[in-house]
Amino acid sequence: MWRVFFTSAIVAVVVRTAMGWCKSGICGHFGGGGFIIWDVSDGQDDYYFKELLPMAVIGVIGGLLGALFNQLTLYMTSWRRNSLHKKGNRVKIYEACIISCITSAISFGLPLLRKCSPCPESIPDSGIECPRPPGMYGNYVNFYCKTDNEYNDLATIFFNTQDDAIRNLFSAKTMREFSAQSLLTFLAMFYTLAVVTFGTAVPAGQFVPGIMIGSTYGRLVGMFVVRFYKKLNIEEGTYALLGAASFLGGSMRMTVSLCVIMVEITNNLKLLPLIMLVLLISKAVGDAFNEGLYEVQARLKGIPLLESRPKYHMRQMIAKEACQSQKVISLPRVIRVADVASILRSNKHNGFPVIDHTRSGETLVIGLVLRSHLLVLLQSKVDFQHSPLPCDPSARPIRHSFSEFAKPVSSKGLCIEDIHLTSDDLEMYIDLAPFLNPSPYVVPEDMSLTKVYNLFRQLGLRHLFVVPRPSRVIGLITRKDLLIEENGESSAVELQQSTSRSVQ
Amino acid sequence: MWRVFFTSAIVAVVVRTAMGWCKSGICGHFGGGGFIIWDVSDGQDDYYFKELLPMAVIGVIGGLLGALFNQLTLYMTSWRRNSLHKKGNRVKIYEACIISCITSAISFGLPLLRKCSPCPESIPDSGIECPRPPGMYGNYVNFYCKTDNEYNDLATIFFNTQDDAIRNLFSAKTMREFSAQSLLTFLAMFYTLAVVTFGTAVPAGQFVPGIMIGSTYGRLVGMFVVRFYKKLNIEEGTYALLGAASFLGGSMRMTVSLCVIMVEITNNLKLLPLIMLVLLISKAVGDAFNEGLYEVQARLKGIPLLESRPKYHMRQMIAKEACQSQKVISLPRVIRVADVASILRSNKHNGFPVIDHTRSGETLVIGLVLRSHLLVLLQSKVDFQHSPLPCDPSARPIRHSFSEFAKPVSSKGLCIEDIHLTSDDLEMYIDLAPFLNPSPYVVPEDMSLTKVYNLFRQLGLRHLFVVPRPSRVIGLITRKDLLIEENGESSAVELQQSTSRSVQ
Repeated sequence: MWRVFFTSAIVAVVVRTAMGWCKSGICGHFGGGGFIIWDVSDGQDDYYFKELLPMAVIGVIGGLLGALFNQLTLYMTSWRRNSLHKKGNRVKIYEACIISCITSAISFGLPLLRKCSPCPESIPDSGIECPRPPGMYGNYVNFYCKTDNEYNDLATIFFNTQDDAIRNLFSAKTMREFSAQSLLTFLAMFYTLAVVTFGTAVPAGQFVPGIMIGSTYGRLVGMFVVRFYKKLNIEEGTYALLGAASFLGGSMRMTVSLCVIMVEITNNLKLLPLIMLVLLISKAVGDAFNEGLYEVQARLKGIPLLESRPKYHMRQMIAKEACQSQKVISLPRVIRVADVASILRSNKHNGFPVIDHTRSGETLVIGLVLRSHLLVLLQSKVDFQHSPLPCDPSARPIRHSFSEFAKPVSSKGLCIEDIHLTSDDLEMYIDLAPFLNPSPYVVPEDMSLTKVYNLFRQLGLRHLFVVPRPSRVIGLITRKDLLIEENGESSAVELQQSTSRSVQ
Repeated sequence: MWRVFFTSAIVAVVVRTAMGWCKSGICGHFGGGGFIIWDVSDGQDDYYFKELLPMAVIGVIGGLLGALFNQLTLYMTSWRRNSLHKKGNRVKIYEACIISCITSAISFGLPLLRKCSPCPESIPDSGIECPRPPGMYGNYVNFYCKTDNEYNDLATIFFNTQDDAIRNLFSAKTMREFSAQSLLTFLAMFYTLAVVTFGTAVPAGQFVPGIMIGSTYGRLVGMFVVRFYKKLNIEEGTYALLGAASFLGGSMRMTVSLCVIMVEITNNLKLLPLIMLVLLISKAVGDAFNEGLYEVQARLKGIPLLESRPKYHMRQMIAKEACQSQKVISLPRVIRVADVASILRSNKHNGFPVIDHTRSGETLVIGLVLRSHLLVLLQSKVDFQHSPLPCDPSARPIRHSFSEFAKPVSSKGLCIEDIHLTSDDLEMYIDLAPFLNPSPYVVPEDMSLTKVYNLFRQLGLRHLFVVPRPSRVIGLITRKDLLIEENGESSAVELQQSTSRSVQ
């Protein structure tokens, strides 16, 4: 965290300085803009109690549309995975091309069908021109209008970069710029396109489209509020901003982080409580229907994502009950290569306990070996030995580097079918002791499953041994023991602690 | 988090609405102010590369003064605990009274010794008047000056509420308001007073005094910077703000949270990167000397606070080595009251393992019982029984409520010396089975101490059993097992998971 924090501070200062050098225009567009993409600090300054109801309505709409979005993209993505993309990589390219053609046709064609509106007579002290001068970025786009004093409101959103479209939707002091009809048309088309595009083979984010969708219906609600409360100083742009927050909240279901992001990109701290309220309402409404966008997609990909809290019924369960689905296969310390190969073929377990015998004949669990590490050992073959006896660890040369055991980033890792073993290889032995995790976390068999769940979540575990209840306790560690180990016994602070401890 | 978030949003909206009602002045002072205490959004807008060096200097000063502050308060607090406050509660009251008298005398006396300065000729477009009108809060305090066109710069800081003093120090467009001499005098006096006051028997925060100290030397550095870079548009107030951040960073050693707080109370997002840099420098400098203020004080109070990461030398240690400082005392399931009393008297352990025997004669650890719970059982006496045999849990009435076992908030809890037991009581038995934690977390004896440390930190544990290596593995739990238990086997998502699992 400290490093990330430091890096981002340096980045901000360097970019800022570079922008200062480029201000004269010598670097083209790089001198313009800033860290705050959509500055709304000149917008609505205060809000009224009466406005809370329409804002809550925005939250509800955001929750509903967001939950619907998650559900539709779930269907689309699973359809893509299960049927469309199985037909080969070429299909992915065709799909992306077709969708981009449709998007272009809609973005160009729909504004053409819309009549131009006359420019407003006066735009108070904002520096906004209508229509915008040619070659500039701005509001009030003249798109094939007949006269020079007209603009096309649909083109102002559609036929623009998404950044500028959002800036136009958020803009203050541009009352009645958009007609309800245009906003509804845009909302329907863009929502559909966003659902269809999500999951195609193009790198695309979900943030800016989400803000687009949200700010459209937000501005729509804002138009009605402005018309209803004529006497109050209300801006449509504020509602567009709240709409954006509500859709992101309804779809992604983040609260605090989204709030910080919304404030950072709009630079209006005074709207923070409203953004918070709208986010919470939309998240609550969305949660009533389904999970967040990222959770849904992660589950679809088979990523074992654990929720932050265990389910209530887990309180009634014990650890042993959770592991009855699969039989544990234990490996001896020194094992025949043929046995390893057959065990790896016969099941899909990712980890195996390794058992050894003490001299007195007792069995002892000495660690956990991972499937992926066994596969690496089988492939490299350098650790095969003829003797079925454990080798001496001090005499043993180190034949592997750490990187060999690391899972490659781009492939799915080794597979037992890929490894060719000769019949001589199969007759040899392998000593697993140097390759195992000697102390995986363990839980007693009758521990509550909620406790096990917390252990998994908090420590980010992948495997856990369920063992019999221990027969004796060797020691008891407390926080104070760890503090003694941490500080060394002689430090002054530690001495003071022990005095205060004895007082307590 | 969700609840806190919701509550604060509601609070913000309600306060805002109430402030709107009170704006006419009918509620006195309650209509004024706002959420942003020290608004500096009209201050310096841009910063220059050359400014980074003086800002780094502020960070270093903040780190040094912050670390010194932590060290001095540590000495003061331990002196208070060990000698002054042991003389009784009356001493605490005298101490607080004396310190408040000294503070008052200094705040009133020192500005009197200082000569007044003439008001600046023109203060550009800021609405600041010099001297401030009587009865108003503001800058340029006229404190026993001879003419009406003068102000006393030391009184502007000293003889003011701390909130207003900070506002004056942060203020932009008030160049050369303070003399270096006044700022240095104030810094020395206020720093000393802050050190002396910290830990007295008065409820006092550390935040506003920290901002006061920091903004003083920050403004001092700013004065030199303004004089050095005459052509640049630099404000002294910006440096005061950075100074405040640096002292808080050097003393409290928080980074991200302090950054957010500083931005929230000053409403200037553009200075965020600078605040981040200054905070990091001051934290790094401070960390070279000692720990943060809260950590130092928590250790002094004997609170077993674990650092976020284990020390490096713990990698070489195993769990068993950490618990050799104390011998474990195990209790049988049914134990004589006399034995419980003597065990509790003879040591200070807070938790005891409870051992039972199976029918086949093996021993088995059945749980952990806390010292505090044993004391409650001894005091209430209702669970004493004549027979040394375990009682039948189904026949047993519930004689305790949960609240009996909760530690009282205000006292230090029960003590074995407070409990009176008759000789009849001592001859009786008590069955511990219903009162123990049946599955405390356990670790094998040779687990790496860093792993044990992480377990403690992440789960917030207080006790941990160190047990022998298990002899067999009953089962192995993976994340997927937990997901199956979470979702139920029949859900659609689960089915898709199992298919994708088999593909992988």
